[in-house]
Parts: sequence; C-alpha cells; structure tokens
Amino acid sequence: MKNILDRNQNKAEEVRSLLRSKNVMMVNIISSPGAGKTTLLERTCETLSSGIRIGVIEGDVTTDRDAKRLEKYNIPIVSINTEGGCHLDSHSIWKALEHFDLDHLDLLFVENVGNLICPSQFDLGEAFKLAVVSTAEGDDKPAKYPMLFSGARAVILNKTDILPYTNFHIASFRADMAEINPRIKIFMTSAVHGEGIREWLEWLKQQMDAFAAS
Amino acid sequence: MKNILDRNQNKAEEVRSLLRSKNVMMVNIISSPGAGKTTLLERTCETLSSGIRIGVIEGDVTTDRDAKRLEKYNIPIVSINTEGGCHLDSHSIWKALEHFDLDHLDLLFVENVGNLICPSQFDLGEAFKLAVVSTAEGDDKPAKYPMLFSGARAVILNKTDILPYTNFHIASFRADMAEINPRIKIFMTSAVHGEGIREWLEWLKQQMDAFAAS
Repeated sequence: MKNILDRNQNKAEEVRSLLRSKNVMMVNIISSPGAGKTTLLERTCETLSSGIRIGVIEGDVTTDRDAKRLEKYNIPIVSINTEGGCHLDSHSIWKALEHFDLDHLDLLFVENVGNLICPSQFDLGEAFKLAVVSTAEGDDKPAKYPMLFSGARAVILNKTDILPYTNFHIASFRADMAEINPRIKIFMTSAVHGEGIREWLEWLKQQMDAFAAS
Repeated sequence: MKNILDRNQNKAEEVRSLLRSKNVMMVNIISSPGAGKTTLLERTCETLSSGIRIGVIEGDVTTDRDAKRLEKYNIPIVSINTEGGCHLDSHSIWKALEHFDLDHLDLLFVENVGNLICPSQFDLGEAFKLAVVSTAEGDDKPAKYPMLFSGARAVILNKTDILPYTNFHIASFRADMAEINPRIKIFMTSAVHGEGIREWLEWLKQQMDAFAAS
C-alpha cells in the first residue's frame, strides 16, 4: 500500500507542476454516492462557463451517465472508467490531461468516484479538494470520515432544501468539523434549486485569483 | 488483487461453514455513508430481539459511533475498526466471531463500511448481502454500482419519508434494477418513522426459516 501511495504521490507532483505551468486550477471533488456532485457541476458550468474556460474529468465505476449530463455545456469532458476501482489516481489523471488543450483552460474539475474513503488518500495533483455532503446523509460524516474533511479546503453541505425533513443538526456538524479542520470553508447549497451557489462561485473565483497570483 | 480476493474467498468459506454448523444466519449490509444502515438495525433490534437472538458486527473506518447507538438493545456487538480501510474482509470477520457465543445466536448482522464499491467485491461468508439505498441518493445507483445490486438478495430503499422532496423516480429505479437483478427483493422503508419495517422483518424471518431448513 505504501508503494502504491508513493508512486501516486510522485505522479501527482508531475500533474501539479504541469497544471501550474499552464495556470489551470484543478479541483478534486469527493463525496458519497448521490450527494450531488454532478448537479453542483451543472449549476457551476451554467453560471461560469461564459467567462471561465472549464473542463471536467469524470470518474465513474461503470457508466458514463455523469459525463452525459454535462455534455450540454459544450465543455471538454474526459471520462475515466475505473472498472470497479473505488478511486481515481494521479496516473489516470495524467493520461486524461493529454486529451485537454491546457493552453485554453482555466479551471478543471475532477468528479471523483462516489466514495468518502479511498479518494481522500490519493493526491491527484489538485489545487485543493472539495468535499460535498448531503443533508440526508446525517451530521456525523465529518467525525466518521475525518481523513477527507481534514484534507479538504472547503465542504459543500448540499440538499439544504430537504434539511427540514431530516434529523441533521447543523450545530453538531459544525462542531465536529471545527475539531477536525477549523479552517475549512463551509457552504450550504441546494444545487437543484440554486440556493447558495452564488456564494460558492464567488469563493471559487477568489481561489482562482489566488492560484493565478501564487 | 486477485490473490487478495482468493485469500478472502477461502476464509469466507470457512466462516460460512462455521456459521452453517451453528445455524447462525449472517447478513452483510452494504450502503453508501448515511443511507440508514444503523437506524434500520435499531428498528430491527427493537422489534426482533425478544424472540430472536441477534448479534452485530460493526465495521467503521475510525469511530465506534454506530456500535454505541446499538448498545441499548443489550445484544452482543463487536466493532471492527478498519483504520482507513474501505471494506471488511472475511479474515476480520473470522476474528470477530471468536467474541460471540455462536451457540446462543440466531442472526448476525454485519454493518459494512459505508461504501458501495469495495464491500461488494468481498464475500464475508454471509448468507446473503442486503443493499440499502436512500431516496436522497438518486435513482441512478443500481446502474452506477451494478456489482452490489447484482450480488444482493434484497435492497431496502430507505428514507421514503423524504421521497416527495427529492427527484427520485421509483419507476426508473425499478427498471434499472430489473435489468441488473430481476430476482432482487425490493423493500421501501422509512427506518426513522418505522414505515415498511414490518414487511422487511417478515421477509427476514422467512429467510431464517429457509436457512434453518437448508
């Protein structure tokens, strides 16, 4: 396992250098199955894609359903079918990058495989990790999967529209999160209805400015 | 990977033989994080635990929060902390079984790690796999994670109480499921509110009768 992680880390640094040289900010999105990663990308693409050149790498275990949902935005999308594998690694990202014109790209999202565990252990060469959690999953996710949340720069608490019908306690979620990663930025969104998307995108643009200046 | 799976399979058969000889039916419960496995076990334990001797093996990545939630039922519980591992394997189950008095047990639940991918590849020696999906996760889960659903004897579609607030299409879920595993038994429950639990438990008792007679 250590060998696998070491090999992954070396390639991740190559990915990071390449993207740095091309000024492309890569965001590695990690969540449980069905937390709303693809819907978040839909909202993000339809709002940002006029001014910012976006690309997406879609990681899926078997199908290309998520990639198909994003085709309508006319952005470059590369699907990685992990054929049963539970996470993406930096080698598959490196190969996927060959299919993008990096000189004409500003922002590259990686929609990782739906899984809170393994994806958090594999650096893909991203600028930062973004965690997405649905209010329907329960407020205990940070405490139960600390590796993801300690390593993410931001977390999107999605599906706030169904929050009133769940037993999710925001205070408990925030308290656990403050212990695991006090600096993490928390957004509350309903990607389906568009709530909270503006705040997320404003922050995302700040990250892009900071990335370009760094 | 093949070696790991072969070793796992051998031990799984040992687990299966042992449990067969003791007439203990083991159910391997697999779901995404936060689909409601523990709440389902709470409803199951409080209804069944008078007549049927239940035990639980709790798989968790880091904490023992789920085990603590079940302590009130005064049933034997063994926690397996996978320390970052994304699934249980048959060797850890074998070791856990040492802590149960199998001569005084009828039904053993394994609450696997919250993950739809890796747990479906590892036979633990169970009588059958039970998949749990939440209505908030979206109806595309069978198509996206066919390995779990093709190998499960039943699926519990949980959180029907929030179904009206989601875009989950039951017909689409059933159609995909019929293609992947036409014989799978589908239950619809709200484990929090108790809806559908009676049907699930009646079926579970039938499985126990069939197991005892086999």
